[in-house]
Amino acid sequence: MNEGVEWALHTCVNLCWIPGQSVTAARLAAFYDLPTAYLNKQLQALARAGILMSTTGPRGGFQLARPPEKITLLDVVVAIDGPEDAFRCQEILRSGPGGQARTNYRKTCLISHSMRQAEMTWRKELSSQSIADIVQSVEHSFPKTPEDTRHWFDTIRT
Amino acid sequence: MNEGVEWALHTCVNLCWIPGQSVTAARLAAFYDLPTAYLNKQLQALARAGILMSTTGPRGGFQLARPPEKITLLDVVVAIDGPEDAFRCQEILRSGPGGQARTNYRKTCLISHSMRQAEMTWRKELSSQSIADIVQSVEHSFPKTPEDTRHWFDTIRT
Repeated sequence: MNEGVEWALHTCVNLCWIPGQSVTAARLAAFYDLPTAYLNKQLQALARAGILMSTTGPRGGFQLARPPEKITLLDVVVAIDGPEDAFRCQEILRSGPGGQARTNYRKTCLISHSMRQAEMTWRKELSSQSIADIVQSVEHSFPKTPEDTRHWFDTIRT
Repeated sequence: MNEGVEWALHTCVNLCWIPGQSVTAARLAAFYDLPTAYLNKQLQALARAGILMSTTGPRGGFQLARPPEKITLLDVVVAIDGPEDAFRCQEILRSGPGGQARTNYRKTCLISHSMRQAEMTWRKELSSQSIADIVQSVEHSFPKTPEDTRHWFDTIRT
């Protein structure tokens, strides 16, 4: 999985603590000492997926495009890493004895089916948790984090 | 995920239908028209993981090293694709404001925790199914497959 998934998840969580502000890719990157250009690529992907909203101009930057309750972990993973399953059935049964050119082995192959089923449990788990859930857990376990994050973005300029 | 996972799973299933025989990598590869050298790499990985047993000599080759009931889909995935999670926490919190050099953020980070939890549901699902389960489902849905597979390996020489 693309390491940008980690960056994107953390960035979405941080943006919850500075609501209403548009934050540049450079400042979001500086927060974790990440390369701006590469983080910017992930932020653009999140914007294309409707998770972030990007504004231009002197006060431009990124902010959440919808409430964090409506952004699941799966939304972020798919936006950055693409919608494909980890196991990509290449339908090798087609090349086996008796293989049929027109059969869709992704549907009929029982190995493909089992791998797909496991992938669905992973997706279901990721879609059962929202960015708001993460924010709430962090605030519960690390109550100073929201204020520290706000303070950092209020005072640091890059 | 490495495409070899698909090859390895199908190969383990096929070996169930030709018990007691050692089959060369060349013949196992020919079954699906796969490149022998590359399949051989996967077969060696399965042997290192104790899933296959490799014998040398004129009648040498590969066979299952343990009963198919004792080989889970997860065993095969891990043997071929490695034990790492898809999401690899790089502990970016360490580089954030207030980050501590000695903290293990893989343990404390709640994003890392949620991603790990999803991965665990996937692993749990994969480990709940064995090669024997797949064999049984195939035999139920495609009753001719075991005999066809045996016949192919009995008659084809490569």
